[in-house]
Amino acid sequence: MWQLYHFPLCPFSRKVRLALGEKGVPYDLIRENPWEGRDEFFALNPAGRTPVLRYVEKKLVLIDSQAICEYFEETVDKSPLILGTAANRAEIRRLTALFDESFFTDVTYPILQEKMKKRILYRAPPDSRLLRETMRLLHEHLDYIDWLIDNRRWLAGAQLSLADFAAAAQLSVIDYLGGVDWSGHDGAHGWYRVMKSRPSFRPLLADKMESLPPPRHYSDVNA
Amino acid sequence: MWQLYHFPLCPFSRKVRLALGEKGVPYDLIRENPWEGRDEFFALNPAGRTPVLRYVEKKLVLIDSQAICEYFEETVDKSPLILGTAANRAEIRRLTALFDESFFTDVTYPILQEKMKKRILYRAPPDSRLLRETMRLLHEHLDYIDWLIDNRRWLAGAQLSLADFAAAAQLSVIDYLGGVDWSGHDGAHGWYRVMKSRPSFRPLLADKMESLPPPRHYSDVNA
Repeated sequence: MWQLYHFPLCPFSRKVRLALGEKGVPYDLIRENPWEGRDEFFALNPAGRTPVLRYVEKKLVLIDSQAICEYFEETVDKSPLILGTAANRAEIRRLTALFDESFFTDVTYPILQEKMKKRILYRAPPDSRLLRETMRLLHEHLDYIDWLIDNRRWLAGAQLSLADFAAAAQLSVIDYLGGVDWSGHDGAHGWYRVMKSRPSFRPLLADKMESLPPPRHYSDVNA
Repeated sequence: MWQLYHFPLCPFSRKVRLALGEKGVPYDLIRENPWEGRDEFFALNPAGRTPVLRYVEKKLVLIDSQAICEYFEETVDKSPLILGTAANRAEIRRLTALFDESFFTDVTYPILQEKMKKRILYRAPPDSRLLRETMRLLHEHLDYIDWLIDNRRWLAGAQLSLADFAAAAQLSVIDYLGGVDWSGHDGAHGWYRVMKSRPSFRPLLADKMESLPPPRHYSDVNA
């Protein structure tokens, strides 16, 4: 059985959970708090980051959310997520990297720092100026999602792909922390509701982070 | 013909140049200065980052260094760079991501800021405290390369792979800016000399950035 070392609000752990869910790969969840820096976890992943996927009996350890998704893309035929021609696949990987890197750096990481880490670890209030700037960048990214959805059926083209799950994973973390203002982003909002209603999303919507409850609308697939 | 929009000291442009060189894919270089923010370039890549690869006649635009490398891995049989079993391929992608993300964030990005951007754009001296901390992190990464090379023939295993080129691309930028102190890292240094002597490396060693000449040893494959 696969074991996924994850953190509930790690967007990359969420991306992997969504991909495994779509592909019907069963796994056990193992909770890892990134700030604890457990020696046993560093022994598995010298970079000390979630997600890590392990299959003890096969002596296999997979690290990095994209490497993990590519592994299951290559080994499980069900529900291809990096699909189509080489050019289509390049577009899926471009957008996946955009959400994993730019969106994460601009939006998810600062929100996690301000709304989760400061609260849980330092019991300090968030920096409201920094949060405002982050919200401005979130709107720019949502504008881009609106544009994509205006021009395509799914983010990377005619078919549902890993790009949709990478984007939804980032947004779901911000949604949990109460931070997505969808006003003016009907296209992105409609797309996100569809993503949220997929069976692969259900475990994410049920997962709670202790002492940091999500807002009421978080698990409502119509919100 | 492919056109590569690149910046000479962009490590991701260098990674793509090395991969295209190994695979024997011809291309024209188009110089793009990231700080200029040209509208025509943003029209090609909304993220405004190099590298971008374009084939005008085929109306094809490829963005993101990993998406570009995966595209040529899928379309060109020569010199596979993401090779072996699914587990081998996951290990290659894990290490490629480690150098593209952690090494870049910890080392290449701050060195580019301090030694290139400040000098060219602001004519300001580098922050020596920040450079010292960056050098400390560089040594940690070189320790890890030493460990890999002690345990494997190449970084990701028995065969030369994209992980070697991703790492060498980052290091070549630091080497150009005069910043690699190899003392205590014989394993990593020997491996880098081998990488530097490959034909795919030659165009990188000949490329000069105006008003920022490389140190003498930079183009010496034995240094």
